[in-house]
Formats: sequence, structure tokens, C-alpha cells
Amino acid sequence: MRTLEELAEITERSIIGLTFPDEPRKLFSPVKYTLEAGGKRIRPLLALAACNMFNDNAIEAIDIALGIEVFHNFTLLHDDIMDNAGLRHGRPTVHKKWDENTAILSGDAMVIYSYELISRCKPAILGQILKIFNSVALGVCQGQQYDMDFETSGTVSIPEYMEMIRLKTAVLLAGAAQMGALAGGASYENSQKMYDFGIVLGLGFQLQDDVLDTYGDPETFGKNIGGDIESNKKTFLMLKALETAGEDDKKKLLSLIECKDIDKTEKFNAVKEIYDRCNVKESTGTEIEKLHNKAVGILNGIDLPDDRKNTIREIIEVLIKRDK
Amino acid sequence: MRTLEELAEITERSIIGLTFPDEPRKLFSPVKYTLEAGGKRIRPLLALAACNMFNDNAIEAIDIALGIEVFHNFTLLHDDIMDNAGLRHGRPTVHKKWDENTAILSGDAMVIYSYELISRCKPAILGQILKIFNSVALGVCQGQQYDMDFETSGTVSIPEYMEMIRLKTAVLLAGAAQMGALAGGASYENSQKMYDFGIVLGLGFQLQDDVLDTYGDPETFGKNIGGDIESNKKTFLMLKALETAGEDDKKKLLSLIECKDIDKTEKFNAVKEIYDRCNVKESTGTEIEKLHNKAVGILNGIDLPDDRKNTIREIIEVLIKRDK
Repeated sequence: MRTLEELAEITERSIIGLTFPDEPRKLFSPVKYTLEAGGKRIRPLLALAACNMFNDNAIEAIDIALGIEVFHNFTLLHDDIMDNAGLRHGRPTVHKKWDENTAILSGDAMVIYSYELISRCKPAILGQILKIFNSVALGVCQGQQYDMDFETSGTVSIPEYMEMIRLKTAVLLAGAAQMGALAGGASYENSQKMYDFGIVLGLGFQLQDDVLDTYGDPETFGKNIGGDIESNKKTFLMLKALETAGEDDKKKLLSLIECKDIDKTEKFNAVKEIYDRCNVKESTGTEIEKLHNKAVGILNGIDLPDDRKNTIREIIEVLIKRDK
Repeated sequence: MRTLEELAEITERSIIGLTFPDEPRKLFSPVKYTLEAGGKRIRPLLALAACNMFNDNAIEAIDIALGIEVFHNFTLLHDDIMDNAGLRHGRPTVHKKWDENTAILSGDAMVIYSYELISRCKPAILGQILKIFNSVALGVCQGQQYDMDFETSGTVSIPEYMEMIRLKTAVLLAGAAQMGALAGGASYENSQKMYDFGIVLGLGFQLQDDVLDTYGDPETFGKNIGGDIESNKKTFLMLKALETAGEDDKKKLLSLIECKDIDKTEKFNAVKEIYDRCNVKESTGTEIEKLHNKAVGILNGIDLPDDRKNTIREIIEVLIKRDK
């Protein structure tokens, strides 16, 4: 079995090794630019590790792993247009560096390319793999639409939020785990357990992201701290605060959300103070802990020698207990 | 075997019968809106007719036919954003009726949905079908990029133009013919002949479109006459005129292209006069005739009873000899 570091190295090398047609240059340069940008490569890592659980040769899942990573990067590319984001991994986004049309069309080429990679899996599992990938890919679009809907929607409940992040974030991780397992020769039943595992892992990962966006250490967390509060994002923390705050704090929080000309540091500190009084860091932590335990539980329920699960266990710790 | 009218009815009924998740509404309403808009449905018709050549049951290719039509409509949706087009089939385009983010994301959902439909084909041919579809789909994106590149490129040669329309228009028709044939049980060799046939048909179809955009009857041709001349599009007619015009006419044509504040009817008439002097309608007609004969020749070369090719022959006449 491979260590997490070995899988990470294989992933990075394989992504850099992807080749594209030379022409038209304006179509494929942004694709290469996007894929070279780095990122945590969580999804391909998860696919390879899931494969390796069931098969000594983790590489059996490499095309699936790459297809998922290309698809993920396509969603980032198009999301950045929709959010009008200027930077990604510290570099100008594609629609800023080139233009919007280029970003739309290069993204389109990336979806197709992700299918091309996925289609390279063994013919015997191709039908199953596509069914999972199609469903997961459509789910990600649904999640993105809910996320945009929430921006203009007055009230969002915590269950609605969890459903949104299930679609936007968790299903692709779940698909990576399930498809990786299938590529490794897992039974369909075991692959479904890996999907369920991936959902729980993905939810925990996103809640941890929400926590870090407010409470992370600017030195270690990749993104700017406070972005969610600045843009009034209805995160788990915000929704929990709105749910549990006393009358005064709730009023104050709502007025902070509506206030347009407040200094961003002042706003961040004021919102964080309310978060602190409502203990949202702790209650989100409790939720994450539950998800962590649930993920471990599902993994334990898969009938395989315990030591085959070590790399996946390491991934859980990295993703849920991370500080970056 | 089915008549062209029967295949058209099956196509239309099947497109209207497609179902989508109810939620999120903003993601799927534009998809339904786009698919309900009509259009010639050439690609699904061609897939069904190609299938029916090799198989009494044309319906064997229905999922492939639908997948191709959904993909085609996705390209229209995203192209309309890129071209900032306001109308499509006489109705507001999605990015005008909703907004640009909605158009981007709904288009993304449509690509994925097209793959879902394509994936429903018989498992025995799934690998072959995907390989063709992936290659064709990427080709369409490359064609769109060349088309956009040509807008700002000083010189475009006729071979470059033919390569652009091969990718942007012909490969999807070719893929429809090849995949339809495979779904009908054609040998891979015969399916490749159908692909080659589709390329030639697609090139003829596009050149006919170029002719109709300038010389069509406004009463029967669906689009506004003169759009290509108005937007300085480097069509076959324009390139042929630039290639064959005398020194004076060439100068005049180039100044008409550069002139920004000319009345559009005046410009149309002036350009058309030059076209007429250069006989571009006739020389394009000769090119179309060559492509027509080549398409018929490839079809004749397929070892099947002649009467099985009747519907496909009818499609050639409809697409290449059309006046609308």
C-alpha cells in the first residue's frame, strides 16, 4: 500500500503530465493554467486511497482521479465567473487574466475532458462509473445554484444549508471515494459505503472550512480570514448564530449584515464577538466531531483488514482536523 | 423503415418528454425553455435515420439522438452569451431572459445531462460511443474558439475557414451519423463511413447557411437576412470575394468592413453588389454541389440495399438544397 505522501506525489505528477492539443491556444492555455495552480488535490487523493484500500495497485484509479480533479477545476473556473472572483490560489482568475468568453469556453472544454479521462476506466465498470459521475456532476451544479439562490433568499435553515453543501461539496468527494473503490475492485455494496463515507467526510470538510474562514490562523489558512463575514455568506456559523442568539444579538447581527458602509475589520470583529457569545465555534466543532465519528464508523463497517484503511483514516484527519 | 416525417415526430415527442428534477427551479427552467424552443432537430433526426439504415428499429438510437440535441442546445446557450445574442428562435436568449450566471450554470447542467442520455446506450457499444462523443464534443469547443479567434484575426484563408466549420458544425453531425449507425448495429467500419458522410454533409450544410444568410428569401429563411454582412463575419462568401475580387472591389470591400457608421441596408447592398460581380453565389454553389455529390458517393459506397438509404438521402436534400 502507498502512503499518503506517495499518493500525493503520483497525483501531482499525473496532473502535470496531462497533455492537450496545441491549438487553438486560447482554448487550452487557460486549462493548463488552471490545472497547474495547485490546490489540495483532495479529490484525486481520495479516489486513489479508496482504490488502494481494495487493490494493491492504487494506479488503477488514476484516470478517474484525474477526471474528477479536472471536473473540480472546471467548477472553480465557472464559479469564479459567477462570483466575479479576482484571485484563485493567489493568481488572477481565468476570466480576469483572459476574458469571460475564454473562461466560459475553456471551462466547457474541461468538463468534456473530464469525461474523456473518466471514460478511460476499465470497460467492465464503465457503465457504473458513468452513472455515478453523471449524478455527482449534476449534483454539483444543483449545489452551486442553491448557493447562489441563498445569497438573495431571506431565510435559510440549517437543514437547507446542509443539503446545499452536500450537493456543492460532499457529493464530488463521495463520488471520488466510490469510483476509486470500484476501480480497485470493490463490490458495489462496499463502493456504496465509500460513497456514504465520502458524504459525511465532505460535510465535515465544509464545516471545518466555515470555522477556519472566521477562526483560522492567517499564517496557515490559505484564504483570507473573514471573507465569509465580509460577504454576508450564510455559513453554518452565521446560521447557528442567528438560530441561537438572544434577541439583542440577533438584531445586532442582522443590522451588521444589512450595513453597507462599515469598515470590514470592524464588521469582522463585531460579528465574531456575537459568534463568541453564541459559542458557534464550539457548536460547529461538536457537529464536526459527530461527522468525524460517523465517517470513522462507516469506514470501520467495511469488511477489510484494518491496516488497509490507514491512508483513508489519515485523509479524514487531514481534512476534518486541518488548520489550513 | 420510418419516413423522415415519422422520425421527426418521434424526435419532437421525445424531446418534449424529457424530464428534469423540479429543484432548483432556476437551474432547470432555462434548460426546459431552451429545449422547447424548437429548431430543425437535424442532429437527432440524422442519428435516428442512420440507425434506421442498419436496423428496423430506429428507436435504438433515441437516447444518443436526444443526448446530441441536448449537447447542441448547450452550445447554443453558451455561444449566445459569448456573442451577446439577444434572440434565438424569436425568443429572448437565456442570459437575457434570466441572467448570465443562470445561462452559464444551466448550460453546464445541459452538458452533463447530454452525457447522461448518451450513457444510456447499450453497454456493448458504450465505450465506442463515448470515445466518439468526447472527441466530437471537444471538437465543437475548438471550432467555437477558432470562430472567435477569426473575428479579431486579420486574415483567414479558405482552408482555415473550412477547418473551423468542420469543427464547429460538421463533427457533431458526423458524430450523430456515426453513433446512430453504431446504435443500429452497424460495423465499426460502416460507422466510420457514416462519420465521413456526416462531415461532408455538415460542410455543405454550413456553406448553404452562408449563402442563405445573404441570398435567402426573408419569407422562408428563419434568421434575418444580412446578419453575416452586418457583423463582418468571415464567411465562405466573404473570403471567396476577397480572394477573387479585382483590386478596386477588394479595396471597396475592405473599406466597407472597416466602416463603422454606415447604414446597414446600404452596407448590405454594397457588399452584395461586389459578391455578385465576383460570382461568389455561383462559386459557393459549385462547392456545395461538390460536397453534395461527395456525400451521395460515400453513402453509395456503404454495402446495404439501396432502399435502406432513402431517408438519409432525403436528409441530404433537405439540408443541402434547402431554402430555409
